[in-house]
Parts: sequence; structure tokens; C-alpha cells
Amino acid sequence: MPLPEKALIAQIRRMVGPSIRGRNGGGNRAVLTGIGDDCAVLRLLAGKDSLVTTDFTLEGIHFRRDWHPPETVGHRCLARGLSDIAAMGGEPAAVFLSLALPRDLAQSWVGRFARSLISLAEKHGATVAGGDTAESPDGILADIIVVGTVPKGKAILRSGAKAGDRIYVSGELGGSAAAVVKMRAQRGGGRTKPRDYVRHFYPEPRVELGRVLREKGLASAMIDTSDGLSTDLAHICEESGVGAEIDSSLIPRACAGKPAREVDLDLAMHGGEDYELLFTAPHRKRIPRHIAGVAITQIGQITRSRGIFVRNPEGVGYELHPRGWEHFRK
Amino acid sequence: MPLPEKALIAQIRRMVGPSIRGRNGGGNRAVLTGIGDDCAVLRLLAGKDSLVTTDFTLEGIHFRRDWHPPETVGHRCLARGLSDIAAMGGEPAAVFLSLALPRDLAQSWVGRFARSLISLAEKHGATVAGGDTAESPDGILADIIVVGTVPKGKAILRSGAKAGDRIYVSGELGGSAAAVVKMRAQRGGGRTKPRDYVRHFYPEPRVELGRVLREKGLASAMIDTSDGLSTDLAHICEESGVGAEIDSSLIPRACAGKPAREVDLDLAMHGGEDYELLFTAPHRKRIPRHIAGVAITQIGQITRSRGIFVRNPEGVGYELHPRGWEHFRK
Repeated sequence: MPLPEKALIAQIRRMVGPSIRGRNGGGNRAVLTGIGDDCAVLRLLAGKDSLVTTDFTLEGIHFRRDWHPPETVGHRCLARGLSDIAAMGGEPAAVFLSLALPRDLAQSWVGRFARSLISLAEKHGATVAGGDTAESPDGILADIIVVGTVPKGKAILRSGAKAGDRIYVSGELGGSAAAVVKMRAQRGGGRTKPRDYVRHFYPEPRVELGRVLREKGLASAMIDTSDGLSTDLAHICEESGVGAEIDSSLIPRACAGKPAREVDLDLAMHGGEDYELLFTAPHRKRIPRHIAGVAITQIGQITRSRGIFVRNPEGVGYELHPRGWEHFRK
Repeated sequence: MPLPEKALIAQIRRMVGPSIRGRNGGGNRAVLTGIGDDCAVLRLLAGKDSLVTTDFTLEGIHFRRDWHPPETVGHRCLARGLSDIAAMGGEPAAVFLSLALPRDLAQSWVGRFARSLISLAEKHGATVAGGDTAESPDGILADIIVVGTVPKGKAILRSGAKAGDRIYVSGELGGSAAAVVKMRAQRGGGRTKPRDYVRHFYPEPRVELGRVLREKGLASAMIDTSDGLSTDLAHICEESGVGAEIDSSLIPRACAGKPAREVDLDLAMHGGEDYELLFTAPHRKRIPRHIAGVAITQIGQITRSRGIFVRNPEGVGYELHPRGWEHFRK
């Protein structure tokens, strides 16, 4: 393999080295052998199940180089994986990054991308323990793998929702999609500042919230809102064999932009990549209004009959169809 | 996300469904929850360390659609990961596939790719337990993740070679590179038949051999020959802080092509993707000539002084420099 890979490996090694040499204290003790062998060797605690999630971050699909500074790409790349761990009530342990880069990419891009990713990993107590590097045929291609743990049999699945359970969502919705709408309208993201659209550029995975919900046994089913409320609620309903009713006036809508304004209901309902947690809880469970510093809002309830119905403030009901989320396809 | 993904998920689910529903017997019991939740949930045996490896398979870099039938791409994609598990002396448990496909790719391509991959996984007792699907901006992009296990503290690392250890390699080398040379010369792989170059199109990862070497405590260091003997031996030397002397007349050269002929020494020395095991063993250990049905050949020994030296049949020595392996870049 030609030069770029070797330089890249050296660079990533230098950056993650200190956190990998965790055997002598520091770093994550789950990682016995990190970058530099055929496999990483992990020693996960006894009495735990392992969680594994993988997510692509592809240029032109999940981000655009002219819209997203490298720091935001690195952050969002890992946030996707950490959010999946959060949605199971798990704790992240090790991160693996497969990264394919075009020959002409500046080393500084990689440095800024990797530092941001590593910093988010460290914040959540996870170690970058390996991965793969390759030359890309076209564009920047990343695949992030996060390995986490959860006490045996305690993972919160999508399939546990029961008729009568209440439906809750953390934080606010639509803030990430609002940035996409803005950048599309501008035909270029140059004027869309990360600080005005933090939930898009630096989404905070709800790892601590997921852990607390699992420890206290509050959630019966859970998913993260990566594809948007309409799609992700449909996933819970499908896997649990139930339906849902939600009240559109209760959906917490994000404030974004400058000056900041509340996003349209449509964005809150269908916009993806907010990485909030959407969960259900038996109606007798008391759910606090804030958990781990994050607002929790009840938006509806699970029903026996299939389909998702929305009631608007006028009391008119209509069926909600998942619309998916298309990212940044040009 | 548009139609291709949904259809693809449905297709992969249908295919791997039977092996995932392993809870009621059958399949791999390590996988509690597979495709269809935010993460896969694995229950690995107590007393084991976990192994994790990730490898890209990118169109135009690792394969060419006009040279490689989909079955061979699926097989080679997973063989890369299984071979990394083998090189640690581990046993594969679960496989994750991240797959990004161009919009216009025929569903039949995906079916043939996935069936071949799943069949190789099953042969080695591993379950396809999840992954990610996305639309590709350009070409077929796959990332394979294999999770395996090894008894606590027993993983065979690259860093264990000591001066005086003998160097061994399994099978034969250069067979895979011979196919690449042929296809390049022909400017098109149509006439290069998989059955004439089996080690290239259907490499057999040496999982059983790796396991036996670990169980019997024979190997002090090990790696798989994915980048080629010269590069992979350099990795062992670098990680172990040693050097090596090899005898070029002892290197087992593959027979390939039609009519079959022995490959040139250069290919055996530098050609990649044979996925054999290269290992070292203390000189007092008796290494059988065949292990798990695979021929084992001693090719040299580890030295205290750095650098890798080759002695040819005329007794002339020269220093060997790793040349890497460039795959299929057009």
C-alpha cells in the first residue's frame, strides 16, 4: 500500500497511542492490545453482554466536504455509533475506525477529523482500539464500529413496547434537519455556522441518559432518533407488534439558526440525525422531567391496534407514515 | 433512505434470518439479538478475551467488478476478516457487514455476494449478526467486522518472536498474486477462471490451523500473509524488536494457472492476499509438517540484529525490503 496509508497509520497511532497504552493505568482497561496487530484484543467484564454497532459515514451521502468542517465529520461519525450503544442502555468500551481516503486529501483534514473523533471517544470512556485504512476510489469513506457492554440480559430492545405504555423522547427534535434545510437553500454550507446548529454539527449522544433508564428499569423499548421520529417510532411499533398515538402539540421542537427560532413541526416529525432517545415506559412508571441533565417529554402512548396516529391541537387525527431521511445526496 | 436499502435489508434478513434465529437451537448461540435493533447483543463465554477486526473491501481498490464474480467478492470480503481471527489463534463468533451500494446495482449481484459470504461464515461457525446499509456515492463499498474469542491471555500476538525462533509459513505463497498478474496482462479478467486460481478467488482462511497452534502452544508470534511475505515478516520483526534470515529456496511457491505452473519467487516473496499463516516458534518445539490438513514449511529464523536477510541457493545474501501490495488500482 502506498505512502498515504503508512503516514495515516503513523498519525493515528501517534494520536491514539496514549489512550491505547492503557495497560499502565489510564485509558480503557478493556483494551489489552490495540492498533498494531491482526485483531484488537478486548477483555470485557464477566457478567456482561457485548453490544456491537457499525455505521457508515460516506462523503456525498452522510456529509459534504464543502459543508462540514473535518471536526464535525469526525464528531458525527462516532456520535452515530455511540448513540446506538445509548439506545440499548449500554456503555461504550472500544471504537474501531475503518477509513478510506482519496490520494490527494490533505493530512491536516485527517488530523482534524481524527482528533475530534478521539476526543468524543475519550469523553465517553471509550478507546480507539483499531480499524483499517485504505486508499479510497472516490471521496472520504468511514465506517465506525463501537463495542459496548450491558449487564447480562439487560439490553433495552426495540421489541419491548406494550399497549398502554407511554412514549417519551429526550431533548428536542428537528434541530439537525434545520441545518440541512438551511445549507440546501444556500447551495453551500459556508454561511451555516456550527455554533448556530449545534445539534447538527456536534450531536451529543445520550449515553448517560440511556444508562440511567436501563439501571432504573424505566424503559420497556428504546431506539435513537437517527432516521427521524416517524421512522424510528415505526421501527419500535414494528418490532414490538403494536401501534401508537402521538399528540403533535407535545413534540418538543428544537430552536436553531440565528436568530434562533423553533423549527417547523414537519422537521421535528420527520427530520433525522438528532440522536435523541425515543423510548416507551409502562404507564405506572413515574418518569422524571429531566434525567442526566436532559429534558424528557411524553408525546403519546402505545396502542394495541397497528399504525401510528397523530392528533393535532384541533383534535383532528391522521395516520403518520415514516418518511425516512435522505442525508446529503447531491 | 430510498428503496434499494429497504429491499436490501429485507433480502439480507431473509438470507441470514435462519442463522440468526439461533435462540431456538441452531446458529451461533453467541448472538442473542441480531439484525433489527440498534446494536447486536452478543453473549461471549466467560474466561475468554474478545477479538475484533475490521477490513474494507472497496471496488476499484480490492476488487474489480469486471474481474471478480460477486461470489468471489463476498468470499474474499469475509476471508480477510476470518484470516485476522486465525492469525490470533482465535475462533470467529459473529460477523457484521457494512455495505454501500450504487443505486443502479442489480439485486442479483447483492444476492450472489451475500450468499457466498454467509456460506463462508456458516462454514466457520460464525453468524452474520448485523451491519449497516447505505447508498454508495460511487462503486460497491463493504466493510467486514469479525468478532471472535480466544481463551484469556492466549491470543498469539505479532510481538512474541525471539532471537533463535524458527520461522514457518502455511500452504504456498504467490498464488493469489499470480491471478492478478494474469488479469492485468489480459486487461480484463474474463478469461481468468476462478478454478485455475483458487487461492485468489476463494482463499481459505486458516482458522483451524491457527486454533491448533494456539491450543498446543506452538507459536510465539503470528500474522496472516495479507500484504505479502516481505511486508508481513517485517511487521513481526518490528513488533517483536528482532530481525530475520530466510532461505529463498525454502519458500513454498504456489502452483497456479492452466496449465498449472509454479509462480516466480518474486510473487511468492511479495505477493499479497494469500491469507496463509506466518508464525515463529521456539527452536526446541517440534512443528509437524502438516497441521489441520495444511502443509507447514520452515523458511528461516529470527535474529537478534535488525533487518531481514535473504540467502539464495547460491549462498548469496541480500537485505529484503517490504514492498507492500497494491491490489487492483486501475
